[in-house]
Amino acid sequence: MAQVPPSTLPDIQGGHDDRNIAIEKVGVRNVRWPMAVLDRAKGTQHTIGTFSLLVDLPHHFKGTHMSRFIEVLGEHKDEFGIESLSGLLATLRAKLKAETAYAEIRFPYFIQKKAPVSKQPSLMEYECAFFASQTATSFEFSIEVCVPITTLCPCSKEISERGAHNQRGIVTARVRCEPDLWLEEIVEAIESCASCDLYPLLKRPDEKWVTERAYDNPRFVEDVVREVALAFDREPRIHSYEVEVENQESIHTHNAYAYVRR
Amino acid sequence: MAQVPPSTLPDIQGGHDDRNIAIEKVGVRNVRWPMAVLDRAKGTQHTIGTFSLLVDLPHHFKGTHMSRFIEVLGEHKDEFGIESLSGLLATLRAKLKAETAYAEIRFPYFIQKKAPVSKQPSLMEYECAFFASQTATSFEFSIEVCVPITTLCPCSKEISERGAHNQRGIVTARVRCEPDLWLEEIVEAIESCASCDLYPLLKRPDEKWVTERAYDNPRFVEDVVREVALAFDREPRIHSYEVEVENQESIHTHNAYAYVRR
Amino acid sequence: MAQVPPSTLPDIQGGHDDRNIAIEKVGVRNVRWPMAVLDRAKGTQHTIGTFSLLVDLPHHFKGTHMSRFIEVLGEHKDEFGIESLSGLLATLRAKLKAETAYAEIRFPYFIQKKAPVSKQPSLMEYECAFFASQTATSFEFSIEVCVPITTLCPCSKEISERGAHNQRGIVTARVRCEPDLWLEEIVEAIESCASCDLYPLLKRPDEKWVTERAYDNPRFVEDVVREVALAFDREPRIHSYEVEVENQESIHTHNAYAYVRR
Amino acid sequence: MAQVPPSTLPDIQGGHDDRNIAIEKVGVRNVRWPMAVLDRAKGTQHTIGTFSLLVDLPHHFKGTHMSRFIEVLGEHKDEFGIESLSGLLATLRAKLKAETAYAEIRFPYFIQKKAPVSKQPSLMEYECAFFASQTATSFEFSIEVCVPITTLCPCSKEISERGAHNQRGIVTARVRCEPDLWLEEIVEAIESCASCDLYPLLKRPDEKWVTERAYDNPRFVEDVVREVALAFDREPRIHSYEVEVENQESIHTHNAYAYVRR
Repeated sequence: MAQVPPSTLPDIQGGHDDRNIAIEKVGVRNVRWPMAVLDRAKGTQHTIGTFSLLVDLPHHFKGTHMSRFIEVLGEHKDEFGIESLSGLLATLRAKLKAETAYAEIRFPYFIQKKAPVSKQPSLMEYECAFFASQTATSFEFSIEVCVPITTLCPCSKEISERGAHNQRGIVTARVRCEPDLWLEEIVEAIESCASCDLYPLLKRPDEKWVTERAYDNPRFVEDVVREVALAFDREPRIHSYEVEVENQESIHTHNAYAYVRR
Repeated sequence: MAQVPPSTLPDIQGGHDDRNIAIEKVGVRNVRWPMAVLDRAKGTQHTIGTFSLLVDLPHHFKGTHMSRFIEVLGEHKDEFGIESLSGLLATLRAKLKAETAYAEIRFPYFIQKKAPVSKQPSLMEYECAFFASQTATSFEFSIEVCVPITTLCPCSKEISERGAHNQRGIVTARVRCEPDLWLEEIVEAIESCASCDLYPLLKRPDEKWVTERAYDNPRFVEDVVREVALAFDREPRIHSYEVEVENQESIHTHNAYAYVRR
Repeated sequence: MAQVPPSTLPDIQGGHDDRNIAIEKVGVRNVRWPMAVLDRAKGTQHTIGTFSLLVDLPHHFKGTHMSRFIEVLGEHKDEFGIESLSGLLATLRAKLKAETAYAEIRFPYFIQKKAPVSKQPSLMEYECAFFASQTATSFEFSIEVCVPITTLCPCSKEISERGAHNQRGIVTARVRCEPDLWLEEIVEAIESCASCDLYPLLKRPDEKWVTERAYDNPRFVEDVVREVALAFDREPRIHSYEVEVENQESIHTHNAYAYVRR
Repeated sequence: MAQVPPSTLPDIQGGHDDRNIAIEKVGVRNVRWPMAVLDRAKGTQHTIGTFSLLVDLPHHFKGTHMSRFIEVLGEHKDEFGIESLSGLLATLRAKLKAETAYAEIRFPYFIQKKAPVSKQPSLMEYECAFFASQTATSFEFSIEVCVPITTLCPCSKEISERGAHNQRGIVTARVRCEPDLWLEEIVEAIESCASCDLYPLLKRPDEKWVTERAYDNPRFVEDVVREVALAFDREPRIHSYEVEVENQESIHTHNAYAYVRR
């Protein structure tokens, strides 16, 4: 097939729209792309992002040019580092003639943890996300981290003669913060608020340790969410936050939930 | 085992908390329960709800009483009709001594559709949700409906000598509205904005009809979201809305997306 | 548009295929449809099925007629009861001129449970599935039930001075059985093998009871899967089975798993 | 806390079991771990695996030692390359005193594709999996690849005066093959059987090309599954296979499906 030069094909998206409705956000979602994230221990960590890239569309344009979002990602060659997030949004604004550009990037992130007694190392995964938006005069940035923890029920412990129900809970925190706050610092702050934190690898002395530690630190979802709030309040690099805790209750099929924001 | 009367066991949740942090929302999530919804054609439709039931918790209480949320659902006997949603929230506020109670109820809803030419009937499923919150002086209510549609790309049609790529898109609309607005009316308004609406059952004359109709009504996600906005603007019983359209592009693995709110 | 009678449009699917490849299974998946299931306590339970309906296709046919699968469902009017499953498959075989017809129907099912001490009733959901296939001379049928349970770790209990980690586990059992075996019987057999079974509604005396019962009945995934196997071996109406248990470990982010079949 | 030497804590799992039930598979699931895969273009590709690692358990052992599965992964330091899969299984067999060891590893894999006309490069993701099992005398290995494609309906094209419905379909192929077969070769074989393959980045001349190509190559799910079967039959390095195609029909909410195995 003879190659058709782009300029000879009509630009439908660039046409005029007379419905007089501006579109808040338009673009691509669920774009999967390799990326790199700053890693406190190793310098850089390779991971895989799930990207939403969006811009606003003024009322007089019929459509946006979807392929340009992918081109901008492609300019970063096989990998996309978060240090270039502001540059990415600036490029999107320029290429798409938009006032505001938005990025949401979800990615798994691994941190090495050492078992509490045996000190054996292993890798623990945390689901993270970056959210950013940029206009001509502003840049907003927030981080979301999901931290699985152990919670042990204070009521169950108090009323029972032996044992106490406990379970996996998930703390999801979204913070607006200074750029020098490490993902690792957010994770550590959250894990310190649990009945006990989780480890991929636990030998028997470790299992004894985490069992007893959880039993000695019973926490409702209400307790965890408040402790995380207090920890975040003590951190001056965190400007505002939302925290939710959801317990996969071991005695129910439904979940217990608590949410705080500041 | 001898039965222990409730009153002899300590009430940990009811204890005092001195961390001085009020909790915006606390309660149960992912509770599955049979329910009934008003159905324009049949009067009532049996379905299955996924419930989040939440209240606020003042700073001086250690915890909420999670079992009471389930008790309140249970008082509605095996089924929960939306007409009693305000009553449910009032009961939650009273039983949990809360200022504000929240409910989010997701459920599948079926509407009978007739094929466009053969008129053969079949059942089409729509994922829906009710959101409600109540204080001593206010009651807020909104409905979410997910409507799968066909979208056919205007650019692809214009630049190609034959054919045009099309795909399944999902319109998700969340509206604050008068209580007398039917789910069916929201669905119909949205489906009228698509390149073509979907049918579970299409015979060959129907398939010819929907193919040609979609080809004759090319729509970007930007077009669909704007048309839905216009349709909602014309409906006085809709007070405000958010609409998003996400196309499962047949030529990409990622999705095209547009979002408008008023 | 003038209505086109079906017979004037060509039947592409009915054409000849000369690639000489028979297709094991062809049809529709993820069809959502209201249905009814026999309920030991109530006679009938309304629920919502997710259907896969498939047939084999001989090598000489180009394609199957997808709309007929939906027509067959539609003949059952708004609801589909399992007692008519064999009839459904017979109709599919006839309408699609197939040797073998297959159905897989997934649905949520609710059973009323009474809390162990307070005896307060509530509804517990179990994800279930029917699998059936039919030829001219055979009819095969199996049931799958997912039962969430509590498991308490025997190792953690033994090595720790206080407490023991426990968590939600999921038992998934698939059994070939006599038609008079109730879903409820399979559920009860499985729940009796857990450290403790789950309840949607537990008051404080109930919570004390389930906590102590789980502590007194520690079970690995290996223990649960073996106990279920023994229970099924004792039931003459169960001809063969597969059982898997997956623990949402409260001390890890990964799951512990065991699988047995007979 | 003083560190407790492992040897002083009882080994519950290593105890005797007298229920006389051997367990087919026991171990860990949903373990997330960074890994590397051989890449035809780049030599090595970093990705993230979701691991199931399982062994059989003889009837006389009470349980397996779950932490050893993670230790074995950890011995591969932060990354796990598939070339060491046989070694991993051998280590699992030895450390867990098992007859058979099983691994299932799911991971996203990226291949650079060039747009058909503009030749602009971009990265396309494919969900892949390795399955392996090993005994003292055998090693079995298979690969699964999910390839999203465009399918255009032959019936819709034939009966309609203009246009034809098309959609995203997913081909899932699982093949037993020689170790020198590249993931890229399986993907290419499958993509050649579609109405058209997908691209993350398409400029207007490309979009014209893929639209017309799909229109010129209408394919039912039955056609795709047969064409893939023929392509695999021609490849001597493929010993056996299962192929399924599932169309996210643009005119229905349910999916069309076909399955073949050899």
